[in-house]
Amino acid sequence: MPRTADTASFKFNHTMIRIKDPEASLKFYTEVLGMDLITKNVKSDFTLYFLAFDNGDGDQPEEVRAKTRFTREGILELTHNHGTESDPDFKGYASGNAEPGRGFGHIAISVDDIDKACERFEKLGVQFKKRPNEGTMKHIAFILDPDGYWVEIVPGSLNV
Amino acid sequence: MPRTADTASFKFNHTMIRIKDPEASLKFYTEVLGMDLITKNVKSDFTLYFLAFDNGDGDQPEEVRAKTRFTREGILELTHNHGTESDPDFKGYASGNAEPGRGFGHIAISVDDIDKACERFEKLGVQFKKRPNEGTMKHIAFILDPDGYWVEIVPGSLNV
Repeated sequence: MPRTADTASFKFNHTMIRIKDPEASLKFYTEVLGMDLITKNVKSDFTLYFLAFDNGDGDQPEEVRAKTRFTREGILELTHNHGTESDPDFKGYASGNAEPGRGFGHIAISVDDIDKACERFEKLGVQFKKRPNEGTMKHIAFILDPDGYWVEIVPGSLNV
Repeated sequence: MPRTADTASFKFNHTMIRIKDPEASLKFYTEVLGMDLITKNVKSDFTLYFLAFDNGDGDQPEEVRAKTRFTREGILELTHNHGTESDPDFKGYASGNAEPGRGFGHIAISVDDIDKACERFEKLGVQFKKRPNEGTMKHIAFILDPDGYWVEIVPGSLNV
């Protein structure tokens, strides 16, 4: 239904997850999945990385694109608390899919051709939680990001 | 940068979180935040609810809108494992922001007028984690959804 005036401007802008190692995570989200690093915000103790799939604004200067980080949907915010990447005592983050810490489930990327996408992931050495031909949900896959968060790969044409 | 052909069709389609009680969560996400229930998928043990902010397609028949759930960005998927809402032994889900289970951080809604939005949330009895005038980040707020997940409220015009 059309929204009331109270919420007319609201957008589901971003989802934030914590990451251990920005080098590994940026490689995964930009090179494997093809997101752009829209902008980053470096603080003394932590850095925030804002990523999104290019919606045709890839040729714009970074300062223009950076302003879209709170005005569009589909942004992924990665929070890196400095030092976790080299701390031998850091135990890693919870994926949200097992106890303790069950709650968050996954993020999902929709793709045109899931078989082709998964073949490419295999070649790139991506870790799978579930391949399309495994389990009962034959039409989707789950891959793991560098922290072990689940990333669902789902065909845009899926209609179940 | 423009994407390669390999990832040209990829979209950040949805984020999934588990919920204890669909009645409470649907009320929060549709009435308080103004999202639409795009479609739901009822299975024997669980139900999936797909929500998103209306992008101008609110007048389309539900079966047309339902097909957008894997083709657009900004979808929120709520997973309800049947029975949790009335199970006295169910301990609730982890927000991701405290041990054990730290990892997931929050989802974020961008709004035109954060003061007006927060005044309305107060009137509706929404629980705040941080009001705009609290803490060091004066420009944003965090509210809590019925499961205790953090929902950031951020002005679309923010440029920090």
